[in-house]
Amino acid sequence: MKQVFDLVIFGGTGDLSMRKLLPAMYRAYHQGHCSEDSRILVCCRKPSDFEVLPERIEEALKTFLDAEEFDSSRCNAFMSIVEPVMLDLTNLEQGWTQFSDLFEGREEYIRLFYLAVMPSIYGACCENLSTKNLITPNSRIVVEKPLGYDLDSAEKINETMARYFQEEQIYRIDHYLGKETVQNLLALRFGNFLFENIWDSKAIEHIQISISEQVGLEGRAGFYDEAGAMRDMVQNHLLQLLCLVAMESPNKLRAEDVRVEKIKVLRALKPILPEDMESSVVRGQYVSGQIDGEKVPGYLDELESYQSNTETYVAIKTFIENWRWAGVPFYLRTGKRLKKRSAEIIVQFKNVTHNVYGSKEKNLEPNRLIIQLQPEEKIQLVLMAKAIGEHGEKKSENEDLSSSLESKENLKPITLNLDFSQESIPFKSSAYQRLLIDAIHGNSTLFIHRDEVRAAWKWVDPIIESWKSSAVPPEFYSAGSWGPTKANELFEKREQSWINIAENKTSTGKSK
Amino acid sequence: MKQVFDLVIFGGTGDLSMRKLLPAMYRAYHQGHCSEDSRILVCCRKPSDFEVLPERIEEALKTFLDAEEFDSSRCNAFMSIVEPVMLDLTNLEQGWTQFSDLFEGREEYIRLFYLAVMPSIYGACCENLSTKNLITPNSRIVVEKPLGYDLDSAEKINETMARYFQEEQIYRIDHYLGKETVQNLLALRFGNFLFENIWDSKAIEHIQISISEQVGLEGRAGFYDEAGAMRDMVQNHLLQLLCLVAMESPNKLRAEDVRVEKIKVLRALKPILPEDMESSVVRGQYVSGQIDGEKVPGYLDELESYQSNTETYVAIKTFIENWRWAGVPFYLRTGKRLKKRSAEIIVQFKNVTHNVYGSKEKNLEPNRLIIQLQPEEKIQLVLMAKAIGEHGEKKSENEDLSSSLESKENLKPITLNLDFSQESIPFKSSAYQRLLIDAIHGNSTLFIHRDEVRAAWKWVDPIIESWKSSAVPPEFYSAGSWGPTKANELFEKREQSWINIAENKTSTGKSK
Repeated sequence: MKQVFDLVIFGGTGDLSMRKLLPAMYRAYHQGHCSEDSRILVCCRKPSDFEVLPERIEEALKTFLDAEEFDSSRCNAFMSIVEPVMLDLTNLEQGWTQFSDLFEGREEYIRLFYLAVMPSIYGACCENLSTKNLITPNSRIVVEKPLGYDLDSAEKINETMARYFQEEQIYRIDHYLGKETVQNLLALRFGNFLFENIWDSKAIEHIQISISEQVGLEGRAGFYDEAGAMRDMVQNHLLQLLCLVAMESPNKLRAEDVRVEKIKVLRALKPILPEDMESSVVRGQYVSGQIDGEKVPGYLDELESYQSNTETYVAIKTFIENWRWAGVPFYLRTGKRLKKRSAEIIVQFKNVTHNVYGSKEKNLEPNRLIIQLQPEEKIQLVLMAKAIGEHGEKKSENEDLSSSLESKENLKPITLNLDFSQESIPFKSSAYQRLLIDAIHGNSTLFIHRDEVRAAWKWVDPIIESWKSSAVPPEFYSAGSWGPTKANELFEKREQSWINIAENKTSTGKSK
Repeated sequence: MKQVFDLVIFGGTGDLSMRKLLPAMYRAYHQGHCSEDSRILVCCRKPSDFEVLPERIEEALKTFLDAEEFDSSRCNAFMSIVEPVMLDLTNLEQGWTQFSDLFEGREEYIRLFYLAVMPSIYGACCENLSTKNLITPNSRIVVEKPLGYDLDSAEKINETMARYFQEEQIYRIDHYLGKETVQNLLALRFGNFLFENIWDSKAIEHIQISISEQVGLEGRAGFYDEAGAMRDMVQNHLLQLLCLVAMESPNKLRAEDVRVEKIKVLRALKPILPEDMESSVVRGQYVSGQIDGEKVPGYLDELESYQSNTETYVAIKTFIENWRWAGVPFYLRTGKRLKKRSAEIIVQFKNVTHNVYGSKEKNLEPNRLIIQLQPEEKIQLVLMAKAIGEHGEKKSENEDLSSSLESKENLKPITLNLDFSQESIPFKSSAYQRLLIDAIHGNSTLFIHRDEVRAAWKWVDPIIESWKSSAVPPEFYSAGSWGPTKANELFEKREQSWINIAENKTSTGKSK
């Protein structure tokens, strides 16, 4: 039995609502995830917005859905459950009574309040919901980053929400966790003897997690210069991905079990002390350059400022201090204005301990499991195999009578692709769709618990503190490069470097 | 520098020569493996054959090469190195002097004598080569199964050859070992940390090696009824494949190192004592049935006999008594008149030790590595992954708030294909081509040493002896089935059975 729900989008005219949430609900609706009588209440503040809201939503759906997904009869069907609402979130006198009336007789239904607004409004908004008695046991609240600026401010936001909602009612979203390939990472780990048995320091050489953006500030200059890549990307997305890659197997894949394991990872992260900064962290800031053949301005130009130490790029080497991961470096990086948009997790296994193919060991590349989240979702396993049809051949009379097998020129890396094309996919799915439906169903496995937010900030704050007190400015890198050359120096072994999947080759570290 | 060679095919008008050896050399020639001045001497006995030999060879090339490989100008080029020879192998008075003259001034070149004849002639043939002083240090002899009928007769054949050739000059061919996928099995094992580190009893549940034929006796009735599947297929092909799957890593992939490891496997095979026969071996004989919709006669009909206990099918459970494989069953089977033509090695890994997805454990299938040799050569890895786009959904109000991740209905087996299509293959390659070129280059890694022949017979002979003294006749199976139902009873675990890759599903054991 599907459950009837009221999804309320506060900040309904905003970017997130138009680009992501409403298209996701359109898909969910047409895949049968919205039971009859369910509603989507899209809130806006200005009368001018309110009047044209249906048209704006339809326009947005047309724009952000794929062409084959959208058609006007489908759109009309979906719009039948969409209801525009005018109210001022922070002012109880402005629309709240009418808003409140909308829920009459629907007390038993699921209520999902999506706060697609600035965290500074969370307090007023929750208070008003409470005053109007709109918070039922079946109510949930969904919020997204930024959840604070550091541990203290994050705690304040979380305390505010906790005054009105139980922790079980609070769904902190990280859309990376909604991606299919992230689900599949868990399936690969826990559904396959092959992987979970070699998922440790005995078999894994290192792990890289990268999120590369091509975009710059996108009009968020003021916010971003206050935040920087560390707060904007590392504290949430990168650390969440790290948790899923590194966590111990939960007893079951239940929300509470998974949360416990994720928190254990965050707490086991080796603190980066001021004296470790030089060897463990590289921060960068882009200067002007070229992306896809187009000239783009530098960070300071975009910021319209002469000076800022804000990092638009950060690369970190870290360790997880437990039995499973002792000694295995985890390399995290993220940056703006990089050469390609890409996000991936690369698990690099150790190389064979002995080379039966001869001496030129470099030709035997290590096995890699590549979990790519952007721009495409795919999973690849890179193995060494024999190039078909090739024979070793004696090159000279002096060569000993060795086997053609021995000539490892024959071996080359071959990629096994997790072939999603074997499946029939009637409708596209998106991370937001999945997460919204999970929230409606009360499934919080892929959401972030307050304790995780806390543990993440505890690890991140000291790094930012070290920067503040440091005289060393960020490394500059050209827009359109793969970031500061210096980031390759984080690697423990000289022959290793950041792997840029989007280029399908290993970064030489000379891309600057 | 390529070496000049004289390849002599004794029995040049026979099936093997026409279907396999000459087409293989045609390919080798056009891939540049035949240096200038090299020759292929094709021997026949009858003047009537001799006169039309060039035409017959051209006809055979046209027939057995792929259409895009053959054209008449290429054929003419190849025929320029082919020389028909008339001689009676067993009679020194018939052509041997002229034959001998052909090698004048070519004493330093490589000589490869391919004995595509019955083993009963090996002795006379070798003696005549010796009498005519044709066996130089650079001479090699290539022979193929059947190498005897049991240990004693095999030893006699090997002793005969050993009188004239050093063991290093004797190349015993097993064409299965020339297959690309067999090469790739070694590359997978020894070039990938991922596999070699889980290639043992801790990770592998069992291994199946199957060679299924659709054909019946093909006019070899008399020979086959004396031999049976055990001598015809198990003693050589199946045990050779078993060796390559199970052997320890050699120090290098050199012939002598690989041989030592293969012999160790054969010697570690657990002997099948008379009292083990019931639980370890199933022999079968086909009765009439249907293959691909066509009615085919039974074995006795083909044999034109009323009674024979000869096995046309055999399935064996065996163990390798060493540290690596202790307790891991190896299941071998082969049969004629089975449903499909297929040959494959299936490495079945253990199932996950704990199921985080819930209780219905059967949905989590174990990982499998499938190395298919026939009808196509391919390598597949079967993993569990999440079906894309599927969401777990609460089916009722009573269901607990479990994660959609937990619902393992979402997991399904996905096949990773070793994608040979990534390679450009200018010309087809064949097992015989590879092995002939290896023999020319003096590379004996993929050939069978006398000690291997000996060790294989030592294990096989007692099984055949047990049958002789047994009152139990072979199990009958219908032509076009997958063999006797009883063969599934060999499996240690009730839920396991023979996997028939050619049908792309697990045999239920009810196919009879």
